[in-house]
Amino acid sequence: MYKIVLMRHGESTWNLDNRFTGWTDVDLTEKGVAEARQAGKLLKEAGFTFDLAYTSVLKRAIRTLWGTLDEMDLMWLPVQHDWRLNERHYGALQGLNKAETAAKYGDEQVLVWRRSYDTPPNPLAEDDERTSFNDPRYASLQREQIPLTECLKDTVERVVPAWNDTIAPAIRSGKRIIVSAHGNSLRALIKMLDGISDADIVNLNIPNGQPLVYELDADLKPIKSYYLGDQDAIAAALAAVASQGKSK
Amino acid sequence: MYKIVLMRHGESTWNLDNRFTGWTDVDLTEKGVAEARQAGKLLKEAGFTFDLAYTSVLKRAIRTLWGTLDEMDLMWLPVQHDWRLNERHYGALQGLNKAETAAKYGDEQVLVWRRSYDTPPNPLAEDDERTSFNDPRYASLQREQIPLTECLKDTVERVVPAWNDTIAPAIRSGKRIIVSAHGNSLRALIKMLDGISDADIVNLNIPNGQPLVYELDADLKPIKSYYLGDQDAIAAALAAVASQGKSK
Repeated sequence: MYKIVLMRHGESTWNLDNRFTGWTDVDLTEKGVAEARQAGKLLKEAGFTFDLAYTSVLKRAIRTLWGTLDEMDLMWLPVQHDWRLNERHYGALQGLNKAETAAKYGDEQVLVWRRSYDTPPNPLAEDDERTSFNDPRYASLQREQIPLTECLKDTVERVVPAWNDTIAPAIRSGKRIIVSAHGNSLRALIKMLDGISDADIVNLNIPNGQPLVYELDADLKPIKSYYLGDQDAIAAALAAVASQGKSK
Repeated sequence: MYKIVLMRHGESTWNLDNRFTGWTDVDLTEKGVAEARQAGKLLKEAGFTFDLAYTSVLKRAIRTLWGTLDEMDLMWLPVQHDWRLNERHYGALQGLNKAETAAKYGDEQVLVWRRSYDTPPNPLAEDDERTSFNDPRYASLQREQIPLTECLKDTVERVVPAWNDTIAPAIRSGKRIIVSAHGNSLRALIKMLDGISDADIVNLNIPNGQPLVYELDADLKPIKSYYLGDQDAIAAALAAVASQGKSK
């Protein structure tokens, strides 16, 4: 039997501002840094250790991983940064306030943009300064691999190969792994692992900074999954995520 | 022409306590963290960027790298942790105060232990709790690869292969590299790069947290080398390093 720990980054400055973030490289808040350290404490107390970590190329996920590894005395752990674990690209919505966008377009339209499986928001224009074409962390990619917008389906289509090509073989080789990523890249992983339908996955919420343990069988099929830590706090964090993007 | 940046970690708690550290995994002081960030600022202002970082498996070097990369907005950079870049193992001296050791054994004996090229301090006993045999970061090594003491010659003999096997090929492939390491693992690199004699290398001092730039030709031979930043501060830091290990 294998175990893997998935973790959404701690609170970011734009979680706090209630803005659509996507590939924008915003940092953690102080609360987010504290969440990362608390996650490390929980994991250590529960007897977890790791051989390898995966994260995105976005600093809110990396700093969350750093805080967790620091608390576990695992700063020396090998870390793979993979752009395919990035948050869903939010297209032209990146930077906009969720509540203001909802007030302008209606809760329903925003819910479609946030939660439709296959309807992406409007793309960024090719010459929009918010595109990632000139960002050195994507320099090894083909231009057409760098999104201008994504629906969750698009995110799934890059996350699943990251799992199949790199994470799954590492698990099979016996490595104990932690993945520090984002709400939608983790949705993509969980959709695949638990076989959740296109319709249902968009309603799955993942709280910030809470270690989510998956126990997997020899075929990497889930036996069970659970959040570590205080279950009331997790329920409250889930409710907070679910209420984002409403106008009031 | 290639460039590589070498950096000794910022001030550690045992630099401050004037204790022999070696493979003991002590952390940075607040000053050390500030030195790391200042190094990142200097590198950024001087127009440096990197494609790859190398560091040891010791947290004082890793946290120095983190602070530097954070300041340069390069948290996503691939990082290779290599035990061969660790500080020289200080054997049975690890944990002892340098001035007290000098008062007990005499400045001359301590200078031999600190600065003889090929005379190691007494080894740790196999059953000493300070050995690294059970540390998970060395789990992939053969027991005989894990030192109980080292002279600088021993350190050179593991650092040079790390250069030849991994760092040099990466430089040749065009990658811009920063190495965050330790006084003696950097001495070993510099000895090799600059062809310094066994007798002279032991007198080379390297200040904490100061980026040292090497410009290399196509054969990776040094064209020139220089510290970035305020040259008076570097001279003061060098003097401080040189005076450690004296009884008063």
